[in-house]
Amino acid sequence: MMKVYKKALLPIGFKANGLNCGIRKSKKLDLALIYSQIPAKAACFFTTNKIKAAPVQLDIIHLKKGRSLIQAIIANSGNANCFTGKAGFKDAESIAAVLAKHLKVKKEHLLVASTGVIGKRLPAGKIKVTIPNLARGLSSAGIDKAKSAIMTTDTFAKEISVKFTLSGKVITICGIAKGAGMIAPDMATMLCFIMTDANISQVILKKALKEAVDNSFNCVTVDGCMSTNDTVAILANAAVGNPLITGGQKLALFSRALNLVCLELAKMMVKDGEGASKFIKIMVEGAKNASQAKKAALAIANSNLFKTAMYGENPNFGRIVAAVGASGAEVKEESFKVKVSPLQKRDIDICVDLNRGGASATVYTSDLTPQYIKINAEYN
Amino acid sequence: MMKVYKKALLPIGFKANGLNCGIRKSKKLDLALIYSQIPAKAACFFTTNKIKAAPVQLDIIHLKKGRSLIQAIIANSGNANCFTGKAGFKDAESIAAVLAKHLKVKKEHLLVASTGVIGKRLPAGKIKVTIPNLARGLSSAGIDKAKSAIMTTDTFAKEISVKFTLSGKVITICGIAKGAGMIAPDMATMLCFIMTDANISQVILKKALKEAVDNSFNCVTVDGCMSTNDTVAILANAAVGNPLITGGQKLALFSRALNLVCLELAKMMVKDGEGASKFIKIMVEGAKNASQAKKAALAIANSNLFKTAMYGENPNFGRIVAAVGASGAEVKEESFKVKVSPLQKRDIDICVDLNRGGASATVYTSDLTPQYIKINAEYN
Repeated sequence: MMKVYKKALLPIGFKANGLNCGIRKSKKLDLALIYSQIPAKAACFFTTNKIKAAPVQLDIIHLKKGRSLIQAIIANSGNANCFTGKAGFKDAESIAAVLAKHLKVKKEHLLVASTGVIGKRLPAGKIKVTIPNLARGLSSAGIDKAKSAIMTTDTFAKEISVKFTLSGKVITICGIAKGAGMIAPDMATMLCFIMTDANISQVILKKALKEAVDNSFNCVTVDGCMSTNDTVAILANAAVGNPLITGGQKLALFSRALNLVCLELAKMMVKDGEGASKFIKIMVEGAKNASQAKKAALAIANSNLFKTAMYGENPNFGRIVAAVGASGAEVKEESFKVKVSPLQKRDIDICVDLNRGGASATVYTSDLTPQYIKINAEYN
Repeated sequence: MMKVYKKALLPIGFKANGLNCGIRKSKKLDLALIYSQIPAKAACFFTTNKIKAAPVQLDIIHLKKGRSLIQAIIANSGNANCFTGKAGFKDAESIAAVLAKHLKVKKEHLLVASTGVIGKRLPAGKIKVTIPNLARGLSSAGIDKAKSAIMTTDTFAKEISVKFTLSGKVITICGIAKGAGMIAPDMATMLCFIMTDANISQVILKKALKEAVDNSFNCVTVDGCMSTNDTVAILANAAVGNPLITGGQKLALFSRALNLVCLELAKMMVKDGEGASKFIKIMVEGAKNASQAKKAALAIANSNLFKTAMYGENPNFGRIVAAVGASGAEVKEESFKVKVSPLQKRDIDICVDLNRGGASATVYTSDLTPQYIKINAEYN
């Protein structure tokens, strides 16, 4: 049986904390720490943007050096530490060095993450002097501060936990994430940290995370803009003591829970998309193949004309037709069908049948509103 | 020498007219007719959207049947006659049939064009009963009514004329166009009709138009949305009596004038982009090749985050970096340079140097404003 909790409940052997270190002048929490009592098996996926933020570059090195064992994640909001050159990379390195010394863990067993404005030097000094306090306050309940500390334009924290029994042990998977603009597949301006006390092989963990990410974060778009800092990381510390998951029925159960965690967090990102007033599910059916189905669904989801029509509750379905026609997916006018649920509701379902084959895809998006423009015209 | 006029001046042998036929209830002109005293050599490019409006489908057939000779163009605004099935195609055919009979020209020597809402049946009857009046009022000055009749959300008419001397004859190239949303390369929700009295070979005319379109309409984007009705047509009726242009210096001069006509009309579309408050020129230099240069430039131009930052006069240049990094163009952080002119002005120049090679591209775009959303949330 799987139990779902709409809040972050840390698995056994994890602690967390969040503080304001002074990057945000508003005193909003801006620095998060997640810690596992032992090095956990980790799997990570990062942005595919060719410009990668310094922390992403550093994490890639750490995962290689440390053989994908991770014991702590430090993450700040308010500054992306991206396009900051060699100085920015050294800033990320120096944070990891101070944290490693303080926690007495290997540098390469740390992940560093940043989110916020691109192109400004990170005030690394503020972070480094806050590390002792941050570490001192680590606790199970501290995940509530950590989840707040990674938020930028998010209006609510994204959190979810799933518990299920495997080989007589109750396993927990807990995820926290931040959105809320620059959200596009592959992946989004998103940070997502997932903790589990399950005992699972590293190779299998990575495969399971890939599948979950493909079906969740890679199926949402708020504004079609791809970030430089996207990171989704899972840490599995085996603290619950179940026999190693290597495949079969046990993996299926673990994957089901992990897929649910990722999909729910992804949907929360869309619901909290910058300025969003609608949550729109787009299902494309009858495509020639899976790639065309996804292409067509994303073309609709990223069409500004479609998104403004949704905001205006305006049944201008010609814009769906035009977007699909421009997507490159195979389509014929005479066999193309569109079904749309009532536009007056917050949650809208769009179902498009291309009648060209058997493949389908589902993506999630929000509408484009004056509030999105206000947020992004002023954000800096 | 080339003289440029910021208004439509019909070349010898052309007449035009515009009327309200009742598609628009506001009495705004909604039906345009352009007529050449003899069948003119024509070249046309249409949308690459897989869903093509009925008039586009019909025009492709006419051009083939009539060996690219065109004597008149009838165009309506307010309804795109797209996604209207067989009935919509018959509507377009019936309009052409009535017009052919009335003007005593061959059906296949006619172009039909529509722009407006997608997916609603065109009131073809209203158009057909208006044809006699429309034809009766044809005149040289009537181009001013024609240019107004094709406008939808445009706030001003797009028109330009160029005169130059070739073999002792003063040749005129005159263009009118409409924007203003669903504007993206390949091409845009645009109709563009170009008339010239030059005597030029049909093959050369098509080549010259392709070059001009690639460097103008295919380099502008307002909202990244590709229309189903895009049409650019040039009619060359040879009325001025110059020796046939087949290449060399004469073609170079003709092409220069045609390029200017297309580029100026394209820029006007961007200036009049829905809700636009900024006109933004994006130059990408130092790209590995031309395709990467254009890809990078369009990625910036189509980034909602970049466009909202421009609207907010917000120097958030990280968004340029993120957009280029996501475009697929080859780029390295350490050699990437951005120069931006003062954001407080209406006209903004963005210059990005990728430092990876010698190729460059220029595209034009507008900002994303609350007004764009207002227009498109309510448009139907």
